[in-house]
Amino acid sequence: MSSSTDKAARRQKFEGVYKIIRDDLVGYLKAETMPKEALEWYQQNLDHNVPGGKLNRGISVVDTVEILKGSSLNDEEYHKAAVLGWCVELLQAYFLVADDMMDQSITRRGQPCWYRVPGVGSIAINDAFMLEAAIYHLLKKYFRPEPYYVDLIEHFHESTFQTELGQLIDLLTAPEDHVDLSKFSLEKYHLIVIYKTAFYSFYLPVALAMRMAMTDPKAYETALSVLIPLGKYFQVQDDFLDCFGLPEHIGKIGTDILDNKCSWNINTALKVATPEQRQILDDNYGKKDSTCEARIKAVYHESPISLPERFEVYEKESYELITGLIASVDESTGVKKEVFLSFLHKVYKRDK
Amino acid sequence: MSSSTDKAARRQKFEGVYKIIRDDLVGYLKAETMPKEALEWYQQNLDHNVPGGKLNRGISVVDTVEILKGSSLNDEEYHKAAVLGWCVELLQAYFLVADDMMDQSITRRGQPCWYRVPGVGSIAINDAFMLEAAIYHLLKKYFRPEPYYVDLIEHFHESTFQTELGQLIDLLTAPEDHVDLSKFSLEKYHLIVIYKTAFYSFYLPVALAMRMAMTDPKAYETALSVLIPLGKYFQVQDDFLDCFGLPEHIGKIGTDILDNKCSWNINTALKVATPEQRQILDDNYGKKDSTCEARIKAVYHESPISLPERFEVYEKESYELITGLIASVDESTGVKKEVFLSFLHKVYKRDK
Ligand SMILES: [Mg+2]
Ligand SMILES: [Mg+2]
Ligand SMILES: [Mg+2]
Ligand SMILES: [Mg+2]
Ligand SMILES: [Mg+2]
Ligand SMILES: [Mg+2]
Repeated sequence: MSSSTDKAARRQKFEGVYKIIRDDLVGYLKAETMPKEALEWYQQNLDHNVPGGKLNRGISVVDTVEILKGSSLNDEEYHKAAVLGWCVELLQAYFLVADDMMDQSITRRGQPCWYRVPGVGSIAINDAFMLEAAIYHLLKKYFRPEPYYVDLIEHFHESTFQTELGQLIDLLTAPEDHVDLSKFSLEKYHLIVIYKTAFYSFYLPVALAMRMAMTDPKAYETALSVLIPLGKYFQVQDDFLDCFGLPEHIGKIGTDILDNKCSWNINTALKVATPEQRQILDDNYGKKDSTCEARIKAVYHESPISLPERFEVYEKESYELITGLIASVDESTGVKKEVFLSFLHKVYKRDK
Repeated sequence: MSSSTDKAARRQKFEGVYKIIRDDLVGYLKAETMPKEALEWYQQNLDHNVPGGKLNRGISVVDTVEILKGSSLNDEEYHKAAVLGWCVELLQAYFLVADDMMDQSITRRGQPCWYRVPGVGSIAINDAFMLEAAIYHLLKKYFRPEPYYVDLIEHFHESTFQTELGQLIDLLTAPEDHVDLSKFSLEKYHLIVIYKTAFYSFYLPVALAMRMAMTDPKAYETALSVLIPLGKYFQVQDDFLDCFGLPEHIGKIGTDILDNKCSWNINTALKVATPEQRQILDDNYGKKDSTCEARIKAVYHESPISLPERFEVYEKESYELITGLIASVDESTGVKKEVFLSFLHKVYKRDK
């Protein structure tokens, strides 16, 4: 089986568990004697917002449990790992429904944002809440007897709060409707990325998987020390590809410049721009205007900004840093280097 | 000390604990190296949304712990009970910030709704999330070593999901901008009230307090069986007072008729209206027009609708039902009739 067929099969197996958890959740509403229209509404909320993404975060829980076990999972183990994976996807859905409202985005994953679906509107706020509530309902249903049940809950609580902190500083630093590049800096950028993305997308899936494998408490610190730099590197790539990736590869047309995003590109440019370049950045960034966007892109290519070259250096340095961190992982705590290498190989030099 | 001085003193003592938990929460952001503007924002979010209400829910946790203990609380016991009380107030704040956005409300507790404060806008969605996250941060900080820690968390998760279900059916039944009285019924009204209000406002504070007093599992069913009818009665009163209470007493001018609210008044009227009265209800309910509102109020007084008389009967029957339920409470599980009597006396025949 080729690696891409294998990947598709793994995805399909993971998607099979979605149907079960969706029926669990809609079944809960039914058991609570909710009217039919509420059941239908919740199912649509789940179907629209939870399963349609890349599922990298969710599937990485299953992959990590498998690597830590060292052999393939039996049906019960697979199901539990996949439920945790879907809980991460539910958390992501909760954040994205809200983020799209706050950013006034139009589409997500090739379909209208949930709040823009006719008849939904601001009900999407309560719908986001109900995506989050689903996580704890499922954890209780499938993990209550486990000794690590409370740890799973705490991982979700902590990652949730951290992501909300990242979202807050992002909203305060880069409001879509008010451009002020003096608020930006690479330091603030890194803080936003770690809190808004790295904790829930990289550390959380691995920490959950480690609970199932009952690793030593020290293993969580190790995981954090590798996965946070990896998450940072991933987001820098994401930002770079938004501007310099090919739309055919990344599957969308980047809008970070138009949207006043606090991205690696603008923060790196601001750090090294000449006064004349800085003026062009100030005058054109975050404007809903493709001519302004083109001016920014042109400056991004100019020396000494030269973002493509700087990204190449950054990528090489990150790769060396992360492989160094992985090399020094102490496997006696129960965690394995392979967990992190598998993440790194999914991320390194991706073009989409 | 008169009963009202006593009440004010109890409130003041409870408010003293707010400053501690607010500093805990802002201190957490500081420890996570969040920038100063994020600390200030979160503090404003907390100060604007958490402490300014009647605090009945929060104080009832403390009162219940005291009744169950049978003597006054030492400082540590008081502090823990008050933290749980503030967690209920945080949950309420989470719901209200979001509810005001969904209802497009203008003011709350005599000040602008949070999302209407200049500069806030849709950031209020993430701010609501951060009010909820605060609950679990505080539970972990103050209750992690307790054997009932996980039970506290589960009470919050369950009440949260239930309240969100109530909010969903309310939003689907009575959207502010589309009046359709055929969706209303007393049965649906009771379902909305139980889920949207009674679980988190009546059962949750008592269940949390019972955990601290380590009562028998059976006691929770007993509490539910008394407190859900009590919560229903409370909401019927609230709805009745919105239309028939004196603004000097209730501290606001009721807007339930203008806002197309699925209230006890309209549902009771719909059940017994003549065809002519029904027409008037259909033509005038939920319109942003004080003449329409006056027509509805006039019909509410007309026979056979006669809401004031029906409310008097309802109130008497509820009181008898609830006192009957309380009389049959089995105190051997560790719960005390006095817990429920104290709630009933706070609610019965209130005019505000
Ligand atoms: Mg966005
Ligand atoms: Mg955003
Ligand atoms: Mg991006
Ligand atoms: Mg409202
Ligand atoms: Mg509402
Ligand atoms: Mg009311």
